Amino acid sequence: MDVKQIKAYGTEASDAGLGELSIKRRGVTAKDVEIDIEYCGVCHSDLHFARNDWGFSVYPVVPGHEIVGKVINVGDAVTNFKVGDLVAVGCLVDSCRSCSNCENDLEQYCPEWVGTYGGHDKYFNMQTFGGYSESIVVDEHFVLKVPTNLNPAAVAPVLCAGITTWSPLRHWKVGKGSKVAVIGLGGLGHMAIKLANALGSEVTLFSRSPDKTKDAMDLGAHRVIISTDEDQMNAFQGHFDLIIDTVPYIHDVNPYVGTLATNGTLVLVGYLGPLDPMLNSVPMIMGRKTVAGSLIGGIAETQELLDFCGEHGITSEIEIINIQDINSAYERMLKSDVHYRFVIDMASLKA
Amino acid sequence: MDVKQIKAYGTEASDAGLGELSIKRRGVTAKDVEIDIEYCGVCHSDLHFARNDWGFSVYPVVPGHEIVGKVINVGDAVTNFKVGDLVAVGCLVDSCRSCSNCENDLEQYCPEWVGTYGGHDKYFNMQTFGGYSESIVVDEHFVLKVPTNLNPAAVAPVLCAGITTWSPLRHWKVGKGSKVAVIGLGGLGHMAIKLANALGSEVTLFSRSPDKTKDAMDLGAHRVIISTDEDQMNAFQGHFDLIIDTVPYIHDVNPYVGTLATNGTLVLVGYLGPLDPMLNSVPMIMGRKTVAGSLIGGIAETQELLDFCGEHGITSEIEIINIQDINSAYERMLKSDVHYRFVIDMASLKA
Repeated sequence: MDVKQIKAYGTEASDAGLGELSIKRRGVTAKDVEIDIEYCGVCHSDLHFARNDWGFSVYPVVPGHEIVGKVINVGDAVTNFKVGDLVAVGCLVDSCRSCSNCENDLEQYCPEWVGTYGGHDKYFNMQTFGGYSESIVVDEHFVLKVPTNLNPAAVAPVLCAGITTWSPLRHWKVGKGSKVAVIGLGGLGHMAIKLANALGSEVTLFSRSPDKTKDAMDLGAHRVIISTDEDQMNAFQGHFDLIIDTVPYIHDVNPYVGTLATNGTLVLVGYLGPLDPMLNSVPMIMGRKTVAGSLIGGIAETQELLDFCGEHGITSEIEIINIQDINSAYERMLKSDVHYRFVIDMASLKA
Repeated sequence: MDVKQIKAYGTEASDAGLGELSIKRRGVTAKDVEIDIEYCGVCHSDLHFARNDWGFSVYPVVPGHEIVGKVINVGDAVTNFKVGDLVAVGCLVDSCRSCSNCENDLEQYCPEWVGTYGGHDKYFNMQTFGGYSESIVVDEHFVLKVPTNLNPAAVAPVLCAGITTWSPLRHWKVGKGSKVAVIGLGGLGHMAIKLANALGSEVTLFSRSPDKTKDAMDLGAHRVIISTDEDQMNAFQGHFDLIIDTVPYIHDVNPYVGTLATNGTLVLVGYLGPLDPMLNSVPMIMGRKTVAGSLIGGIAETQELLDFCGEHGITSEIEIINIQDINSAYERMLKSDVHYRFVIDMASLKA
């Protein structure tokens, strides 16, 4: 197999910070698409993985799973893409293709799914490298078409922040008249507001501080509830059909469960770990309320989202950075000092 | 309004035990049905309410919400029942009739639903009295028809233990080929096994002890998993579409969440309180799994269940007692020494 040595940005150790690396990519096999990466969004997971916050990073780490670029080469058996196409790659680059989840377009729940970085690369028997790099080679099943009417840089975050909130909106059948709330106004939260609004639902942001109100309304929220204000919380008991909880750290979900309507669902998309304080079953039983989790989305669902974004002119709010600024961008991300997603202009790596 | 003084069995204080009382019942108003009570099932809630375990009992307490009897009088505007009909009353005797839950046949989630005992009786401006009594007067909307091919004593527990497990089976669309598990083999659990089996699903009992295996299989389970056996639990990771958790005390639900399939739901129907140890969101997010609660069922759904029981010849396994044995029956219930539900022969009160 052809192997290409390319430039990337990554880290050799959890405490080293990111810098330039040389990595290898496979040449295109029959079903592969080679993509020249133009933009790559910066996700909180990138930072956690680079710093081994979850304890299973293998080094070197090259993060990046919000990838937008142009096709520069295709394998003989590729049918859906041609050189020059504007395409995207999200969090997945492979899965088993035969389990019931794969058969149901739920590749993200396949026990053998391969992450765009930190997954197992069967070609090189080592970890996969993500989008902080010049180019990437991906099986066409995991490559997505990008509507050409959108700003490609601002499309990048749709591949993770967007699909992570779109999938629950679709799974729990949000539409015209649905009452949706979003907890947290970051990369995920701001996409959730835009998408829920475009689906015709009533959109509420739960926030701890009133200073996010203007931004939330500008993004498409119809109201902001200050979650620390008991009167406001009491006024919305039993109100919401779906609450998308994007908060990435431990927090009390019980006050939000109370604001769910009968048959309502609070879906966790940001926080991985034990629910502390303990979840109280009383309001759940008394109103057939559910607490759920949801992980990114499947490939067909991600294409559906990109098409929806094209039709509705939806992209992420972004701040473009050069790859050389990634370490300071991580520091700003930790302080929530970003509105609402950093996107790396990959020309800065190639220069 | 006519008022009738009737015999009942109840208690004047949390530590007094149950004994004979005289209570008043209203005469029939236009939409009312008067029922001579023949049988009344004994639910754990009866015991908790009699002993004020939940802290909101008002005395005297007359428990009983699994009521079967014959119509002896009907109001002028009653259209669905006539004298002599075999009927039943479950956990609800009234609701607001106008909220969205009431309009959607979900009276059990109406904020103003009136419990068969311990609810607010608008006629007398005092608490309602349940089925440990000679007769009851109930608006026809809350009266159910009992199939005449079934043993009426064994139908009584269907009104609470049955509907509590039927409602989640229906809400989560269990049918042929569904993989259902039941945690706990008591009054609720044994009905869940029978009903899930009759719906054509694969039925598993989770139990802590192998000595329940024969009973579970006789009731319609296809297998028993010993929940303390790690190998058995590991073998069923990602397996179940719906788990009905009937355990009425605090317990760790995390090991069961792991056995849910993608999109699977664990529904709590027995335990009211905080989930300790804490619920871990990781497997929920990694498989779009949900933890939910569910409370009894609506009136139309309860009638659907009774009809289903008639068609499939399903009733509860019961032990008939006299009302005078109720205090010792409560003691046996606390030791799980009942297979699987006590039913009071109310002739013993009238004698």
